[in-house]
Amino acid sequence: MNFRYYLTMSKLVLIRHGQSTANRDNVFTGWSDAPLTDKGIAQAHIAGRELAESDTQFDIVLTSVLQRAIVTSYIVMDEIHQPWLPIIKSWRLNERHYGALKGLNKAKTAKKYGDQQVREWRRSYTLMPPLLQHPDQDRRYRASAVIEPLGESAEMSWQRVKPFWEDQIAANLRASKNVLLVAHGSSIRVLLKFLDRVNDADFMNVEVGNGEPIVYDFDNQLHILSKTNL
Amino acid sequence: MNFRYYLTMSKLVLIRHGQSTANRDNVFTGWSDAPLTDKGIAQAHIAGRELAESDTQFDIVLTSVLQRAIVTSYIVMDEIHQPWLPIIKSWRLNERHYGALKGLNKAKTAKKYGDQQVREWRRSYTLMPPLLQHPDQDRRYRASAVIEPLGESAEMSWQRVKPFWEDQIAANLRASKNVLLVAHGSSIRVLLKFLDRVNDADFMNVEVGNGEPIVYDFDNQLHILSKTNL
Repeated sequence: MNFRYYLTMSKLVLIRHGQSTANRDNVFTGWSDAPLTDKGIAQAHIAGRELAESDTQFDIVLTSVLQRAIVTSYIVMDEIHQPWLPIIKSWRLNERHYGALKGLNKAKTAKKYGDQQVREWRRSYTLMPPLLQHPDQDRRYRASAVIEPLGESAEMSWQRVKPFWEDQIAANLRASKNVLLVAHGSSIRVLLKFLDRVNDADFMNVEVGNGEPIVYDFDNQLHILSKTNL
Repeated sequence: MNFRYYLTMSKLVLIRHGQSTANRDNVFTGWSDAPLTDKGIAQAHIAGRELAESDTQFDIVLTSVLQRAIVTSYIVMDEIHQPWLPIIKSWRLNERHYGALKGLNKAKTAKKYGDQQVREWRRSYTLMPPLLQHPDQDRRYRASAVIEPLGESAEMSWQRVKPFWEDQIAANLRASKNVLLVAHGSSIRVLLKFLDRVNDADFMNVEVGNGEPIVYDFDNQLHILSKTNL
């Protein structure tokens, strides 16, 4: 099957940010801008060093507008000695917007609403969280003319990740570019669902750990040749 | 003169990177990718905190493809709580290419060629350094189709900074955007020469310290309303 290597045209590496203060405190995060913890910073360095071993030469870095992903991408770029890579920060790669759950402790919320309800809010593809009454208004979303959501299901977050897949990720992969994408649990989970053709029910079981790189190799027709967890 | 404030449309902040290992070791740097020293990191934090006091809301960050400028920009963006700003890294903002002087100790070079010669190599607008025999070949310049120079006078570096002024800096300022530019001694000195209309002879005296922000306010016709050193 050596011809497969011959056809390998591009690489997509997905990395979820390192542990954030919200991860540590077991809080629903969403579009909150929680920073990395020291553990999260260490996880980012480890992810970068693992990636450095593959000696992959990237062409572009894609991340969200949330600092836990941005800072993770800086650390990874530094560890792979490619700090000069062009970087695009887009709200489309943000974590799912957790609506009125944002900032609530997950354990306390489970006590109030039950474990099953919280698990479904967290893992379901189609279920929406309780909505905010009014959208937040953060300047970072103004330039892209985004009206901030009141809350999103995972499926709704895929609706805004998909144009980014088409315009940035797939477009670069088809141009034989290697893409490093540093994002969030939900924005990566919906990408994995799409790439691995996971059905809605099985989406519940798609997991992504903090700082654990996932590597896809594509041919020039965007067929997946291999998927590796570093 | 209050009407001046009414006309203020945009702000350009120029910051030279913090001290690099090459600055510390008194070595000609140019396109060498020397990292920041601890002192340089501290200078970047101080610059960011000074800038934070003005509460300027930026729209875009422009920097070079050399890590001492890139990392300085990260630190400043963090200190002003705007890590999500779009950033463009361009070779056009690189330090002047120091040709065959790259990596040489300045004091030793002065002993060999004389103080006056070294001062002119460093400060003159038109004098070229001794040239490399062959261009370096670094992957970061391939995507922008740059053939690496064999060496540059300050004037030659202005020839490649000028299109960036036109396409990115001025274009953003005229669109009422606030621009944060983090770059190098020479790429900032040639911008100051242009903005302040310094003649070639007086260019020798244009100095820019590490991590010392320079703030220009422009009206919507790109006239300079004020210049402040923070």
